[in-house]
Amino acid sequence: MGRPVAVTQGDPAGIGPEITHAAWRALKDGGPVFFVIGDPSLYGGTAREIKAAAEASRVFADALPVLSSPLAVPAVPGRPDARNAPSTISSIERAVGLTVAGDACGVVTNPIAKSVLREAGFGHPGHTEFVADLTADLPVDSARGPVMMLAGPSLRVALVSIHKPLRDAIASLTADRIAHVVRVTFEALKRDFGIDAPRLALAGLNPHAGEGGHIGREEIEIITPAADALRADGFDIAGPLPPDAMFHAEARAGYDAAICLYHDQGLIPLKALDFWNGVNVTLGLPIVRTSPDHGTAFDIAGTGVARADSLIAAIRLAAEMGRRRGV
Amino acid sequence: MGRPVAVTQGDPAGIGPEITHAAWRALKDGGPVFFVIGDPSLYGGTAREIKAAAEASRVFADALPVLSSPLAVPAVPGRPDARNAPSTISSIERAVGLTVAGDACGVVTNPIAKSVLREAGFGHPGHTEFVADLTADLPVDSARGPVMMLAGPSLRVALVSIHKPLRDAIASLTADRIAHVVRVTFEALKRDFGIDAPRLALAGLNPHAGEGGHIGREEIEIITPAADALRADGFDIAGPLPPDAMFHAEARAGYDAAICLYHDQGLIPLKALDFWNGVNVTLGLPIVRTSPDHGTAFDIAGTGVARADSLIAAIRLAAEMGRRRGV
Repeated sequence: MGRPVAVTQGDPAGIGPEITHAAWRALKDGGPVFFVIGDPSLYGGTAREIKAAAEASRVFADALPVLSSPLAVPAVPGRPDARNAPSTISSIERAVGLTVAGDACGVVTNPIAKSVLREAGFGHPGHTEFVADLTADLPVDSARGPVMMLAGPSLRVALVSIHKPLRDAIASLTADRIAHVVRVTFEALKRDFGIDAPRLALAGLNPHAGEGGHIGREEIEIITPAADALRADGFDIAGPLPPDAMFHAEARAGYDAAICLYHDQGLIPLKALDFWNGVNVTLGLPIVRTSPDHGTAFDIAGTGVARADSLIAAIRLAAEMGRRRGV
Repeated sequence: MGRPVAVTQGDPAGIGPEITHAAWRALKDGGPVFFVIGDPSLYGGTAREIKAAAEASRVFADALPVLSSPLAVPAVPGRPDARNAPSTISSIERAVGLTVAGDACGVVTNPIAKSVLREAGFGHPGHTEFVADLTADLPVDSARGPVMMLAGPSLRVALVSIHKPLRDAIASLTADRIAHVVRVTFEALKRDFGIDAPRLALAGLNPHAGEGGHIGREEIEIITPAADALRADGFDIAGPLPPDAMFHAEARAGYDAAICLYHDQGLIPLKALDFWNGVNVTLGLPIVRTSPDHGTAFDIAGTGVARADSLIAAIRLAAEMGRRRGV
């Protein structure tokens, strides 16, 4: 058995604790083994404190293994408290540290609330950038990300831009950025997903991919030149394709990942098709990192209705990626 | 039995003729009855020329009824010829005329190639605007469109902008335009779709619908005020919603149509879910008009592989809308 997956606490007032517990119930008999770094009080009677990641596999069939990261004040579901932000942040740092040290095979991050962490002085736009920063000095044996991918049973999408206003996503589009995302995605599909000869599909930006310049110029000026240069470099990449004609089953069968130019171009089809079990994967990092593709869901935290499907899929995928990397 | 549906020829070198023939084979036993306005040579031996729309129902079980609209030169599949553009345009004009006159219950347009028609001096951006122009002087007993809706078995989307470059779709977004599309869509859902109390869902523009202004300002400045004003006027409209969280099955169960701010925001999920049988519907016209949601497909024209699903769905929907309007 490989090393365990390190799961972070996330915001203790969100759904993280309950879906972590649900994920343990779902995985305790067959694995993959994971442990969570958080306050033991969040996980009820079936949690058991461990002192080191290596103890997780011994405990896992009987109890949720917890590396303790104490809260400053008790967590109230649905009521985030900035005083607990240091615990949330520390959990991420320790998960990354244990993975870098080889004690865990990868990091799965539970949802955080950026506004809560900001109050506590957290300056990163989100997990993706924070984990990238924490591992910036480590070598990566492929093109360096971070690139955000959403992976579901039906579809994988890699994003050229993420959390930008749509008009800024358009304004900041360059051939270099597209090429970078393609390279990182291509190498990650080989290394982390076990696809020998990845096939990519690049979306256009405008309706009908611009229809030869009649509906926008970005395809002619930026996207097609980028795609042509990548093809000349040997990448198997189709496009730019009409964005609305590339996400049905027959089209999806033709590629391993879609390269999408803005957040919703990729996330709308991913979530339309695989709402409950999409996984957010950060490509091109020195370590494996995945997460569920939803937020803290403060509105339902503590009510027991939150679904753990995406977290479970994220843990499975992290373990699989770790195995492929041999960690 | 109601009046027949009038189907246009479309570009004679595209897949229009073969899918029209296939639609007749699929519908000849159970209806709805339709006739096509085109060159009889396009439809093979099972076509029968009729002299008036009223003859269609008598002929339909045995042959595809054709009102003759002769081509200038023989059509070659896959090779559009601008000399045949007048026949393509005339077919649309006659179908609209017959529907206005009450001889047909609605118009279903086969795909045209705008670039081919442009060569022949056709100045309209597309069918939608052309049909709106042809019927501009007629009264409409609801909010006047045209508004483009795509309707599939899983989802209906109405579009605030259509064939504009994405950056222009953003720049031209106004609360008035949103309100107009909502009003037209709401009334059409009642009149044409038989929904007594339509529930609408309005998409945001930016990732996460702007996340309170952190990822774009349009929600705060334009979209939320528009939605609030519409709610104050009594419309049942949710939003602005995070665009990636409104198209899975549970979310779709909460509304009858999604109001989408740009072409691909609506067409990506529609075609991801219902690629083969989405129907393009022009809302808010004095007459019923639908069409398949694909193009001429010159690359496969004449090979017999084109699927008629969308055209068949368009004919069924036009007949249903006509019945609801009592024509």
